[in-house]
Amino acid sequence: MTTADEALDDIHEQVEAETPDDITISRVQFEGAELVIYTPDVKAFAARDRLVPNLAQTFQKRITVRPTPDALVPQDKATPEIREIIPDDAGVQSIDFDSDTGEVLIEAEKPGLVIGRRGNTLDEIRTAVGWTPEVVRTPPIESSTVSNVRNFLKQERQDRREILERVGRQIHRPTTSEEDWVRITTLGCCREVGRAAFILSTPETRILIDCGDKPGAEGEVPYLQAPEALAAGPQSIDAVVLTHAHLDHSALLPILFKYGYDGPIYTTEPTRDLMGLLQLDYLDVASKEGRTPPYESQMVRETLKHTIPVEYGNVTDIAPDVKLTMHNAGHILGSAVCHFHVGEGHYNVAFSGDIHYEDTRLLDGAVNDFPRVETLVLESTYGGRNDYQTDQADSERNLEAVINEVHEQDGKVLIPAFAVGRSQELMLVLEEAMREGRIPTMPVYLDGMIREATAIHAAYPEHLRERLRDRILYEDDNPFLADQFQQVDGGDEMRRDVVDGEPAIILTTSGMITGGPIMSWLRLLGGDPNSTLTFVGYQAEGTLGRQIQQGRDEISMNDTAGNGAERVALNMGVETVDGFSGHADRAGLESFVETMNPRPERILCVHGDESSTDQLSSALYQKFNMRTVAPKNLETFRLA
Amino acid sequence: MTTADEALDDIHEQVEAETPDDITISRVQFEGAELVIYTPDVKAFAARDRLVPNLAQTFQKRITVRPTPDALVPQDKATPEIREIIPDDAGVQSIDFDSDTGEVLIEAEKPGLVIGRRGNTLDEIRTAVGWTPEVVRTPPIESSTVSNVRNFLKQERQDRREILERVGRQIHRPTTSEEDWVRITTLGCCREVGRAAFILSTPETRILIDCGDKPGAEGEVPYLQAPEALAAGPQSIDAVVLTHAHLDHSALLPILFKYGYDGPIYTTEPTRDLMGLLQLDYLDVASKEGRTPPYESQMVRETLKHTIPVEYGNVTDIAPDVKLTMHNAGHILGSAVCHFHVGEGHYNVAFSGDIHYEDTRLLDGAVNDFPRVETLVLESTYGGRNDYQTDQADSERNLEAVINEVHEQDGKVLIPAFAVGRSQELMLVLEEAMREGRIPTMPVYLDGMIREATAIHAAYPEHLRERLRDRILYEDDNPFLADQFQQVDGGDEMRRDVVDGEPAIILTTSGMITGGPIMSWLRLLGGDPNSTLTFVGYQAEGTLGRQIQQGRDEISMNDTAGNGAERVALNMGVETVDGFSGHADRAGLESFVETMNPRPERILCVHGDESSTDQLSSALYQKFNMRTVAPKNLETFRLA
Repeated sequence: MTTADEALDDIHEQVEAETPDDITISRVQFEGAELVIYTPDVKAFAARDRLVPNLAQTFQKRITVRPTPDALVPQDKATPEIREIIPDDAGVQSIDFDSDTGEVLIEAEKPGLVIGRRGNTLDEIRTAVGWTPEVVRTPPIESSTVSNVRNFLKQERQDRREILERVGRQIHRPTTSEEDWVRITTLGCCREVGRAAFILSTPETRILIDCGDKPGAEGEVPYLQAPEALAAGPQSIDAVVLTHAHLDHSALLPILFKYGYDGPIYTTEPTRDLMGLLQLDYLDVASKEGRTPPYESQMVRETLKHTIPVEYGNVTDIAPDVKLTMHNAGHILGSAVCHFHVGEGHYNVAFSGDIHYEDTRLLDGAVNDFPRVETLVLESTYGGRNDYQTDQADSERNLEAVINEVHEQDGKVLIPAFAVGRSQELMLVLEEAMREGRIPTMPVYLDGMIREATAIHAAYPEHLRERLRDRILYEDDNPFLADQFQQVDGGDEMRRDVVDGEPAIILTTSGMITGGPIMSWLRLLGGDPNSTLTFVGYQAEGTLGRQIQQGRDEISMNDTAGNGAERVALNMGVETVDGFSGHADRAGLESFVETMNPRPERILCVHGDESSTDQLSSALYQKFNMRTVAPKNLETFRLA
Repeated sequence: MTTADEALDDIHEQVEAETPDDITISRVQFEGAELVIYTPDVKAFAARDRLVPNLAQTFQKRITVRPTPDALVPQDKATPEIREIIPDDAGVQSIDFDSDTGEVLIEAEKPGLVIGRRGNTLDEIRTAVGWTPEVVRTPPIESSTVSNVRNFLKQERQDRREILERVGRQIHRPTTSEEDWVRITTLGCCREVGRAAFILSTPETRILIDCGDKPGAEGEVPYLQAPEALAAGPQSIDAVVLTHAHLDHSALLPILFKYGYDGPIYTTEPTRDLMGLLQLDYLDVASKEGRTPPYESQMVRETLKHTIPVEYGNVTDIAPDVKLTMHNAGHILGSAVCHFHVGEGHYNVAFSGDIHYEDTRLLDGAVNDFPRVETLVLESTYGGRNDYQTDQADSERNLEAVINEVHEQDGKVLIPAFAVGRSQELMLVLEEAMREGRIPTMPVYLDGMIREATAIHAAYPEHLRERLRDRILYEDDNPFLADQFQQVDGGDEMRRDVVDGEPAIILTTSGMITGGPIMSWLRLLGGDPNSTLTFVGYQAEGTLGRQIQQGRDEISMNDTAGNGAERVALNMGVETVDGFSGHADRAGLESFVETMNPRPERILCVHGDESSTDQLSSALYQKFNMRTVAPKNLETFRLA
């Protein structure tokens, strides 16, 4: 019998002791951080008002109570009973039973109506059929990603539960070390942008935070082989925490599973789905460009299967001595500032991930309020001394001016944009500008992954700004569904129709013109002096986007008939409108630190090029008198 | 065929190409850093004056030429021939053939006479018998350690050669990484004294420097389990380098072999022997104190077997991208400042180990002259702002005064001293003071390991100061053999005789009164007000030595009859004479840096308590405007 088993036996006894005699406790089990109690007497359990909160208090755990099989109404009888209880206009799409957990997953267009006031409807279902209802929303825009992920997870639920049980045992193992320290090892993204990866370690625990690739150096993973990373074996890492879905943070996670890692990945639910979308696209792009991808799509599925979703603000045990809390980071849907509480108040570290300090149309600004925090690891993308961006209102006016001018000359506005985050922000800007008449209403064509990424946004309205959430959920006024947004489905034929048609705006990937449908658009539109290529995002050194921005006026690409390189002269206008970045600018980074509560003692400035990290580090030291450093990759810092 | 085999084939071809046609090359082989060439034509090879140096130049390797078996005179004929060639007064003790290497090991009292002027006698032997002669000195004082080690290594020579060949293949493997960096990881001895251990790493190579225990925390080895140390597997370390034999640097080396390490340990020959002595004593003390030693004596033998001796000043390849050069550190016999040259002039790091800057009677002061050095890792034992010690002449006068006073009152001078280093220094001081009449000639009793440690010193006169070496080697005037030095062999009976006898000086271990024969002496002499306990070395916080120094006047110990604790009142005098430390004092550390050639860009101040490392770090920064830091344990610094 292992020590984890003994601990569970102890807990079982304690639970028995604290529950009335008329309630039988069949089994207790950890699943991840949660304590799961199996009982045939679910109703009696639920009837005792304070029982679950009291147990949660006793064990300092989230508690889930599950019925044993004998307490369940058979599925063929339960289904009609459940449909009977739920109001018709909830729009129930599917009812799906998991006999191992006694849970029934109900997908509905309006989950609120399934839940009922204060959970009344859920209680009614539970009482009637014994099954524990879980509710998910049917995405208001059909998203193949969301439905594929949900179906996959349903199908793998046996494996999932085994994973959760194993993780539960690991989290609740007894601690062994008498030492007491906290360390951060920088694996990537120091004095550079890309390949974000850190190890947070204590004598007990090693946590990998992010695992990205470096744009322009795809597949390069030397840091994963460092002794501090995986060289001590894939199981030497206890947990992975993912701040957000962008590939420079998430691309290499599936490799862990190729190497044999089988532990958990903690992240938000939308990040899980966006990550799956982007990783599969990453494989797709690699194979289209003739590169051998560093992993197979099976590994993306393993990644999804091992992901344990975390909600903003919930404190979650992820190791015997580490608690994780994720907070909105304002950067993209699901992005998180990750707060780690180590030991019993021993030390607190926050990783900013990528942040946007101000509210945008899409998301609230980043959270910087914590119970305690001694060290902050802060992104520095725009940390340079001149990295101040135009404010949102000015940016929008500038964009509107460009659009109006091009519209007047009967041209097209071609906007390269990242599929996730920037595109949705622009959609909101364009939708409002048209609705309020500041620009003429005209078609906005979405090419590449943008539509799918937008559908994922719509599936998680709780993560969007309140006004936007309300429009989507309660006012049946989903701006992403506005008529002018049209998906480009028909390949080059449809693109040619668009080019030959009326004035329009085209939003298309990739955001830095490094491939993707933007290449086709440039071939079709590049020669048109009435149209304008409009940059709204950061163009990294070395990308074609940056070169065009700097004046390059001819590009070569493989022609469609496969007859080698075709030269395309760029006669179209080229404009740059800044202020739409998903990153805080220099002012935003300083404000994030200045208003942070409490102020940290120490800041590591990372995720920016050498001058940005250096300049931000110096400035924060001088302004706020903190210990700041711009680390190099592959360094290790003792925090305590 | 591995790449290492291919490389050897290439070298074989090249050697063939560069040697005249009348010389057959049977085989080439790496043994450690050396390139070994086997030929039946050793004579012809030797006859070509520039051939070996030219090959060494071509391959940038040390070259050893060995005869193939058919070129060897049979052993029974070779022995008398060799005895015939060597002059009688060389004092040949043994002649020992290794038919695998074609080497013959000749142990003699006067190796110079075996070697002959410019190696003439050796050449004569080689020509006559075909065997390659190697010469070692018969220790002028019989040392069981030296003879045990030598016999053990003879017996294990088959294994040794396999080890050397394996190491040779590792060193000469092709490099694979395109990255280029140098890192130091601090495992122990930062902001503390004890458990010295560092990892020097490049993308290719990981080198462990020292592997000590922490006095007072015996057996505690958490740092070895850090991912940066051995967690990535014992073979993840390419080489171990040992600066000197003291247990806070060497005690835990044998554990590596318990964990499965089977790579090389580079150190000087005297350090190898002293290390064996101290490690076995470490096991002995642990078992006497009822603790389970962290390894068995078999592991000490593995350690010896894997040791590759390095001579001061010789540049040795220890990895594809790292060259090691050891230099005298002045601290104890065999101690070394270790210089690492990384890549092709890429970076240079020096580890001071423990150093003494000034010359002492026993040893020359530490070397601080290097071709290049960017980073220095510097010991800071006496780095505190008040850590200035009396100079040697004053120290000796103070000691003489104590001795004269005690002699006048017919008492004994009881000196606790470290067996290795301080005892020999004191023996030289006392021998001269008696010879020159500054103190009366009286017996100096040596108890504990001191005699054996002294014998090891005498076995390596080349490592001692020139004047001392000359006295031992050429003037038949070995001060360690002076009549007044008498070994205590008879246990408490003999000690009682000493106590009852004429005035005398007693040198005994342990140096900080943490156990060993000093305890018996205190029981016997503690009550005698005419005798004096005289401290000459650093007494660490928490040791009984420190407590007595601070005024404790009663100690308890188990009585000899096993009747529990016995109380011993200390009526004897207590004196402290400083200036005999084996460590540079604050002035010495500053001078080491000030006169260092070239001055390093960066210094890591280690191996000192928190205030010493901090104060030395600040002072060096302010005086010499270098980047200095007092790291914590378990940090990693990128140097380049």
